[in-house]
Amino acid sequence: MIQTKGYATHDENAKFVPFEFERRDVGPNDILIDIAYAGICHSDIHQAKNEWKDSMPTNYPLVPGHEIVGRVSQVGSDVTKFKVGDTAGIGCFVDSCRECPSCTSGQEQFCHKQAAYTYNGTEMDRVTKTYGGYSDKYVIDENYALKVNATGDLAGVAPLLCAGITTYSPLRRFKVGPGQKVGIVGLGGLGHMGVKLAVAMGAEVTVFSTSPSKEGDALALGAHHFVVTRDPANMTPLTGTFNFILDTVSADHDINPYLNLLGLGGAMVVVGVPASPNVVHSLSLIFGNKTLSGSLIGGIPETQEMLDFCAEHNITSDVEVIKPDYIETAYDRTVKADVRYRFVIDMNNA
Amino acid sequence: MIQTKGYATHDENAKFVPFEFERRDVGPNDILIDIAYAGICHSDIHQAKNEWKDSMPTNYPLVPGHEIVGRVSQVGSDVTKFKVGDTAGIGCFVDSCRECPSCTSGQEQFCHKQAAYTYNGTEMDRVTKTYGGYSDKYVIDENYALKVNATGDLAGVAPLLCAGITTYSPLRRFKVGPGQKVGIVGLGGLGHMGVKLAVAMGAEVTVFSTSPSKEGDALALGAHHFVVTRDPANMTPLTGTFNFILDTVSADHDINPYLNLLGLGGAMVVVGVPASPNVVHSLSLIFGNKTLSGSLIGGIPETQEMLDFCAEHNITSDVEVIKPDYIETAYDRTVKADVRYRFVIDMNNA
Repeated sequence: MIQTKGYATHDENAKFVPFEFERRDVGPNDILIDIAYAGICHSDIHQAKNEWKDSMPTNYPLVPGHEIVGRVSQVGSDVTKFKVGDTAGIGCFVDSCRECPSCTSGQEQFCHKQAAYTYNGTEMDRVTKTYGGYSDKYVIDENYALKVNATGDLAGVAPLLCAGITTYSPLRRFKVGPGQKVGIVGLGGLGHMGVKLAVAMGAEVTVFSTSPSKEGDALALGAHHFVVTRDPANMTPLTGTFNFILDTVSADHDINPYLNLLGLGGAMVVVGVPASPNVVHSLSLIFGNKTLSGSLIGGIPETQEMLDFCAEHNITSDVEVIKPDYIETAYDRTVKADVRYRFVIDMNNA
Repeated sequence: MIQTKGYATHDENAKFVPFEFERRDVGPNDILIDIAYAGICHSDIHQAKNEWKDSMPTNYPLVPGHEIVGRVSQVGSDVTKFKVGDTAGIGCFVDSCRECPSCTSGQEQFCHKQAAYTYNGTEMDRVTKTYGGYSDKYVIDENYALKVNATGDLAGVAPLLCAGITTYSPLRRFKVGPGQKVGIVGLGGLGHMGVKLAVAMGAEVTVFSTSPSKEGDALALGAHHFVVTRDPANMTPLTGTFNFILDTVSADHDINPYLNLLGLGGAMVVVGVPASPNVVHSLSLIFGNKTLSGSLIGGIPETQEMLDFCAEHNITSDVEVIKPDYIETAYDRTVKADVRYRFVIDMNNA
């Protein structure tokens, strides 16, 4: 077994302390990744505080982290995709059944037997507990690791593994590109990636935010327009003008004003999960043949495609790099949306 | 002007009496249709009783009817699409601006300036009131009339102009075809057309109904399976198995059990308009990248495509043909869902 040093919380107070545990030995198809950086996703916070106790209760001790980049330091005898020294990434899952229609179509996130989550889950044996990227090493089957070809700062690559693919996948599914007007609702960890990606895809991008103070950032990220949503007078003139809207907001909010902004055949995708359900009148969808959809991260092939797209377009996440002793403060600041736009923990092992 | 005999209600009691009015003379681009049949759409009833007073108040006297078939008895000097003796149809609108992006893309139902509704509207001059198909004649621009190539009983063709296109358009938009599992929710005027069309497109079709008594009809219409929705035990085994679900129900109901039946990337389209809005949790869409959409009739090109498809596949609506003195009784029976599956008025003029 491989001794691993990480940071765990032992209860819902989310106080992180050093925690040592074992990962499996490197098998024939495995690679060992020495972790350089792990992003802090809002999911980590929910899980650390056991805020999803009804659907995904937390199994303490918890080592979060599913936005992971590092260097390959060991490869199994049958590994073909990686060699020692490569840069590799790990996202939200580390294995799946490999046999169901979702897995065989490269959408492992929807594995019928449930994929093995990167942390707070189990391996596919349903016994071995998984620990995440707030640690110095990860052992993973090469088929579930991603190749990172980016040449710049790796810290900004880590959040691509969750925030990047979460926004990339729906933009691709709805064929966002030149000539299209795209709205990004919310300018946080997800939203700022959505802006960069949609701009790189060639769309005309408008950021919708409740915070006037974010206008400068939005434009600096490449957005073409910025709309403060608190004033309906800002929204009305845009009625029916958008091809696609990506809603990244996790706080309760009314989506109907955004449905109104969609043009004929337009689509809106939600990737945030507010506590309250959406209330949508059928007429809002019928007039204009409009679509409301959801999207969950992405499968391994599309995640690789996203990483390659980002490398090609020099896209990384805007990050604030922290040391592990700052995790609790980073959590507090993330909850207050006081981060531009992602905290990334320097795990200092690659 | 052309003297026209119809049946109108003069108030929201929806009592129909003979009513004479004038239609415009046949212009260079117009055709005169001697009406054979006019279907009774549930919209007619809402409009006759002024039940949409907030959004589309009724301008009495009202001559309803937007499922119209008849014979061309006169053509204008510049008409090229029709000749005297042809069979022609009229749907929910009779003109539009012809210039906006919706009109130029053949989706005139979404005309930015609002299409001219077949009844209870005005011509594009916004002055001349429109009267519908419960009458003996209609004068219409040839570009807004449909060619009917069906050789069988015309009575069953009339409902295609609304119920047919309303169900055909979303089935086509979501590329329903062989190898796909399709659900049709509700077996009424719309639902029974949805079944016939989806079966003809090659899908494996399941009818969802609250009425066990409709099983025989569903199977006779070509459906492969029938599910009584009142018992959740009938629904659970079908979780995640459908590619597409068309919801034709206009009564308040929970759509979430149907979203659960969609598989990965599946889509559900609503064409009915319940009084209460849908309550949809974002997670229901996110897990499975599912889509909820709406659909409103169809444009002229697609309506023609639908009529041609129906002629090719010998598809007509199942109808009960009535005389005009039965309209009020037919309304009462339609409201009670006591019709299989559409009343059609024999206007006896073609």
